[in-house]
Amino acid sequence: MRNFKLTLSYDGTDFFGWQTQPGLRTVQETLEQALADLTGEERVRVNASGRTDTGVHALGQVVNFHSTTPYAPEVILRAINARLPADILLSRAEEVPANFDANRHATRKLYRYVIHDGPVPNLFLRRYCHHSRYPLDAAAMARAAVVLRGTHDFRCFESEWPNRQSSVRTITHLTVNRFGEWMWLNVEADGFLYNMVRAIAGTLLNVGRGHWPEEEVARILEAQDRTQAGPTAPASGLFLMRVGYD
Amino acid sequence: MRNFKLTLSYDGTDFFGWQTQPGLRTVQETLEQALADLTGEERVRVNASGRTDTGVHALGQVVNFHSTTPYAPEVILRAINARLPADILLSRAEEVPANFDANRHATRKLYRYVIHDGPVPNLFLRRYCHHSRYPLDAAAMARAAVVLRGTHDFRCFESEWPNRQSSVRTITHLTVNRFGEWMWLNVEADGFLYNMVRAIAGTLLNVGRGHWPEEEVARILEAQDRTQAGPTAPASGLFLMRVGYD
Repeated sequence: MRNFKLTLSYDGTDFFGWQTQPGLRTVQETLEQALADLTGEERVRVNASGRTDTGVHALGQVVNFHSTTPYAPEVILRAINARLPADILLSRAEEVPANFDANRHATRKLYRYVIHDGPVPNLFLRRYCHHSRYPLDAAAMARAAVVLRGTHDFRCFESEWPNRQSSVRTITHLTVNRFGEWMWLNVEADGFLYNMVRAIAGTLLNVGRGHWPEEEVARILEAQDRTQAGPTAPASGLFLMRVGYD
Repeated sequence: MRNFKLTLSYDGTDFFGWQTQPGLRTVQETLEQALADLTGEERVRVNASGRTDTGVHALGQVVNFHSTTPYAPEVILRAINARLPADILLSRAEEVPANFDANRHATRKLYRYVIHDGPVPNLFLRRYCHHSRYPLDAAAMARAAVVLRGTHDFRCFESEWPNRQSSVRTITHLTVNRFGEWMWLNVEADGFLYNMVRAIAGTLLNVGRGHWPEEEVARILEAQDRTQAGPTAPASGLFLMRVGYD
């Protein structure tokens, strides 16, 4: 069996998330069907770096799959793109060593959360951002975010706690930027808990609109209680940008 | 009866065009229902500057409607936006003299046609452009377009010729611009024939990909025969930008 690594983008708006669910349109199912169609194999199983939820987008999701297909990676890239609907796009296909595992070997991920706080929602980008009805103080959000950098128990931002594993993660990069009416959070970590970026975004949104003082974020982190953090921000603003492997 | 003028944007992707058609989701029907809901009137009829086809977008469509509603224009703006789905947005509401007619009084319209000719389609902007699989020579398209400026019989770009009226129109502005992988045609005229901008775009696309020499456009204009011009370019790239009234 050969092992292939694929890098892909998708517009999550019209998918019920990544993971196959009976009767629902998901990215995994759509991709697996295209691969089965190309290879002639009955079932091709793709193994993703991680699931994304309904409405979440990706610019650099990574998967691997095993197949006996004789095709070169470049052929797979073109042939699969020809079979995929317009809201999924492969950007790269490579053959990798047999033991490469897109999920277990991922050592870092970069997510971006995009916010628009203009007075009027942007009609044409509404699927790709969260529109805040409140004007936001980006500088306050950036200052409040600093305490989240580094290694912490992030269970305050975890939707499904307790899980069986540790809630300790290391955020290696966390910035808040603004350009005009647009803001974006970049968060890179060695791994993410369920809904962690959206909970961080929801918490910083509460700071940005003046609902909470900046110091509140440090207190929430310390409290280790999901109910004290901000709400899970809408999926439409979230993009999985990049997955790193050492 | 009071007379109101509304300026609106819409993402045409998920509408069967402007005009009400039984059983289909159209912009006109959606807007009229929101207005009837607000005013309590049984039927509010909006009169647009012109119809747009399935998939065509607008940033500055203009309509007027008559109503006995006591509400101020600012109230109508807010209340209608609250009632409209996410793919229509009013940007302006004004009260106008009783005789103002958004259709008959329009003296100029500006359309934009957006083309992306990068090697890979843009996943997130695919609804708002036409992706050309061929790299395009924007400078050749701009030179070829020059002969279309001014007053001509444009029946070569008219999908439904013969119509009952004249096919003579005056193009007051026609430019072709490029920024990176993105190109856009701006076309302003005193009025447009059915599918005229998309036929112009399809013709210039044939020049841009080297299929036709630049001089072909002058010959097509002279021939006055729709079958000699290029195909009607896809609706997804077309935006009604602005409607002018003297």
